[in-house]
Amino acid sequence: MESSILAQDERYLLQVSQLKSPEMVFSVEIIPTTLTFVSLPSKTCNKGDTELMAAMASLFIKTPTPSHPLPKTHRITFSTVSPISYSYKQKPIRISCGLIEPDGGKLVELVVPESHRDVKRKEAMRLPKIKLSRIDLEWVHVLSEGWASPLTGFMRESEFLQTLHFNSLRLGDGSIVNMSLPIVLDIDDSQKNRISGFTSVALIDSSDNPVALLNNIEIYKHNKEERIARTWGTTAPGLPYVEEAITGAGDWLIGGDLEVIQPIKYHDGLDRYRLSPSELREEFSKRNADAVFAFQLRNPVHNGHALLMTDTRRRLLEMGYKNPVLLLHPLGGFTKADDVPLAWRMKQHQKVLEDGVLDPENTVVSIFPSPMHYAGPTEVQWHAKARINAGANFYIVGRDPAGMGHPVEKRDLYDADHGKKVLSMAPGLERLNILPFKVAAYDKKQQKMEFFDPSRPQDFLFISGTKMRALAKNNESPPDGFMCPGGWEVLVQYYESLAANDSGLVPQPIPA
Amino acid sequence: MESSILAQDERYLLQVSQLKSPEMVFSVEIIPTTLTFVSLPSKTCNKGDTELMAAMASLFIKTPTPSHPLPKTHRITFSTVSPISYSYKQKPIRISCGLIEPDGGKLVELVVPESHRDVKRKEAMRLPKIKLSRIDLEWVHVLSEGWASPLTGFMRESEFLQTLHFNSLRLGDGSIVNMSLPIVLDIDDSQKNRISGFTSVALIDSSDNPVALLNNIEIYKHNKEERIARTWGTTAPGLPYVEEAITGAGDWLIGGDLEVIQPIKYHDGLDRYRLSPSELREEFSKRNADAVFAFQLRNPVHNGHALLMTDTRRRLLEMGYKNPVLLLHPLGGFTKADDVPLAWRMKQHQKVLEDGVLDPENTVVSIFPSPMHYAGPTEVQWHAKARINAGANFYIVGRDPAGMGHPVEKRDLYDADHGKKVLSMAPGLERLNILPFKVAAYDKKQQKMEFFDPSRPQDFLFISGTKMRALAKNNESPPDGFMCPGGWEVLVQYYESLAANDSGLVPQPIPA
Repeated sequence: MESSILAQDERYLLQVSQLKSPEMVFSVEIIPTTLTFVSLPSKTCNKGDTELMAAMASLFIKTPTPSHPLPKTHRITFSTVSPISYSYKQKPIRISCGLIEPDGGKLVELVVPESHRDVKRKEAMRLPKIKLSRIDLEWVHVLSEGWASPLTGFMRESEFLQTLHFNSLRLGDGSIVNMSLPIVLDIDDSQKNRISGFTSVALIDSSDNPVALLNNIEIYKHNKEERIARTWGTTAPGLPYVEEAITGAGDWLIGGDLEVIQPIKYHDGLDRYRLSPSELREEFSKRNADAVFAFQLRNPVHNGHALLMTDTRRRLLEMGYKNPVLLLHPLGGFTKADDVPLAWRMKQHQKVLEDGVLDPENTVVSIFPSPMHYAGPTEVQWHAKARINAGANFYIVGRDPAGMGHPVEKRDLYDADHGKKVLSMAPGLERLNILPFKVAAYDKKQQKMEFFDPSRPQDFLFISGTKMRALAKNNESPPDGFMCPGGWEVLVQYYESLAANDSGLVPQPIPA
Repeated sequence: MESSILAQDERYLLQVSQLKSPEMVFSVEIIPTTLTFVSLPSKTCNKGDTELMAAMASLFIKTPTPSHPLPKTHRITFSTVSPISYSYKQKPIRISCGLIEPDGGKLVELVVPESHRDVKRKEAMRLPKIKLSRIDLEWVHVLSEGWASPLTGFMRESEFLQTLHFNSLRLGDGSIVNMSLPIVLDIDDSQKNRISGFTSVALIDSSDNPVALLNNIEIYKHNKEERIARTWGTTAPGLPYVEEAITGAGDWLIGGDLEVIQPIKYHDGLDRYRLSPSELREEFSKRNADAVFAFQLRNPVHNGHALLMTDTRRRLLEMGYKNPVLLLHPLGGFTKADDVPLAWRMKQHQKVLEDGVLDPENTVVSIFPSPMHYAGPTEVQWHAKARINAGANFYIVGRDPAGMGHPVEKRDLYDADHGKKVLSMAPGLERLNILPFKVAAYDKKQQKMEFFDPSRPQDFLFISGTKMRALAKNNESPPDGFMCPGGWEVLVQYYESLAANDSGLVPQPIPA
């Protein structure tokens, strides 16, 4: 390694994990993760519960005391499947552990039953139509599967205002759920006029196919400046989501309750990885997961990440969990042009599993369908909240989550620690255990990625994103143990395709 | 009246109440409001409580169910002073009614006891010093008297972040209090360097006198852009508080616990009107108030306002309250250059009481020491929250509270209804009853200000702020009954002084 940045650059992990190079592309073959069923030795659920709570106290970010007594303790709930055994010496039996409850108590699912679809399609034909952009469709997808539970459709004004001002929604029963990003649908003056007098509208895709009905609609003003300022904490030009979805948007927002006519599919070869919260919950139950820890990502996985994930599992096991399962959950919706495209990332993640860096037996790789806001501390709450709905009760948070460089000034848009801090204090997320990201670096002595040890900084090599890109572009190898060979190969392919493509920004298929 | 704007201009009240003309001045003599002691007929407290709750249900903005069970019912608590009588026929006895609890359960008071002041002054001399601006001093004043209870000093980062993101703070016991405006103290690099190694600093006034100690300090980054965007929902240049207090501020914030060496005074002849929350609570208790309704204002009072306030009292009496007391509470801290100066406003308010438009027996006029942010829906929460700490359990909210014109675009900065809506949903304000402002206008038939009746719009005259200024400038009279003669005279004097003073923006004393 000809250059390195040592301990003073504690941003290393972030940099390595953010492959922002604006150049590359391909088509992908992905093999589904092996699904396995794990048998657990028996133990009394109450005992485990108590032990776990005690052990956890020292491990996790201290969330302040919850703002309100929860209807029941949600942190870890064991629901036992017969027969219960109170002795470790008996023959092991399976313990099925209840997953964390979705926000609002019930997972929202908005896709109408198959038997109703034709009726709904016909109903849609008679209604005023709103054409959905790609991002709008991604939000319909998100809403339809209950990632945003208990939201039942695009936000009405009271939800929009609570989101902007409080990052949370108060439900009818007085409880609070987190909701930090506005999930809204804009219309312009002429659309508003066409809708006048109707209480429902049809949402159609780019080919004019009906996608959903929006019922009991409410139309209200879309103050873009205020929305942007309160969501991003800046109004500087150049915010990717703003430029893509807000600047040119209409001056009105339309909220209502969604009836989605059929499951949202993209037909890009990746739909089978788009497990809904309900499917994920089923998967975690099948695996007898007694803890689910989610890792949100939009970048390739290197061995520093892998170390963190396997270390998290180790610690959860030490605490007494018998089968913690990792939800490796790449974001699949809109990303900015210079992020690594989803298909490449999925291919890279797959290699990481194939190479054995992560254990497929206790890892679920799935795609999170949300578009990306790059709204830092505001957005990380959404990323965490949505994973509760998918059954995760542990959430790994890194430095500067959902952050990016300031679009105008030469600095990061957000303080790198704010995401973690805001997440740990966020209303409605009291049930979620926040796991802070430990800083890993390349340990030259051990020739592998290791958690940074400040007592021997000279042994550690921090490889910046720039450095990593330079290595891959020059087809040089990273130090042994930095990334699994299969994953690195994907990256090299990616950079080769960037080099081959001058503009570099438009993904193009390459031979599989 | 040669010109009028009729029903379509429902913004009238706002316009009339916002005398933004940038030109006038005087010195003021103000006579203290008469304090009286009211005897109430006895009634059983529980009975009243139940009746009141039922009656209120139809009257007030529906706040969503509280997010968490409150430790006890706060809406109206009666604490009875002996002897209790259960018959209306018995000799009337006084009922002392407990006021609403301050946020956090205990009113924070940060002025050190007189016996400690010399010691604290000496201690201050040995510490690094931070010079306070006028606005900083106003915040020390606000904090010192517990308006921001349970805050015990300038915000540390966790409070700052919760304020920006959630408009609320979570306390150690898990309860939530509202806190929508950052109350922070900035320092620059060189001040930060001078403080290095100290855990306390001294805060000094413009004459270098020690004002307070700030202990257990925490220094953190002051991201001005993010603070502005999240507080105002815009970063447009020209926001008065931003230009006055943030643009030129240091890049660091310093939080900590305050020890204020002596009560903050301004020596402007108005200090006796600056009652602390503790003094106001004492006053309300002395008056046996069983309801306190607060009216925040920063403009002259006309008969439309007076109508609203007397009507509110009438409705509270109808609900069964025996002695609702109005807290007429003009804001006394920083205001923008074209607002009517505090001294003029106080003189005008005094005339309104002298002229009998408001009844001094059940009105307390006092000055709210906070500086003004003009941050609309974000700020109105602060205005309401601070009044809880002063004992108010009812809060009157108008159209576009704490709003102003957009500094750059030709529109109002905030939607006129958002303040009311946000206030009604705000975390930590569940205990406060929100009273929406009804629209009043000049009823030509009855020749007085009356609530607008949409069934006979032709009878109503909406007098815009522009029109009112034109009348006063030309020394014309408003229609009889628009404003009490004494109050109008103050306005005419004000406009005369503006005319006499070309620049008009710098208040100058005039003969009393």
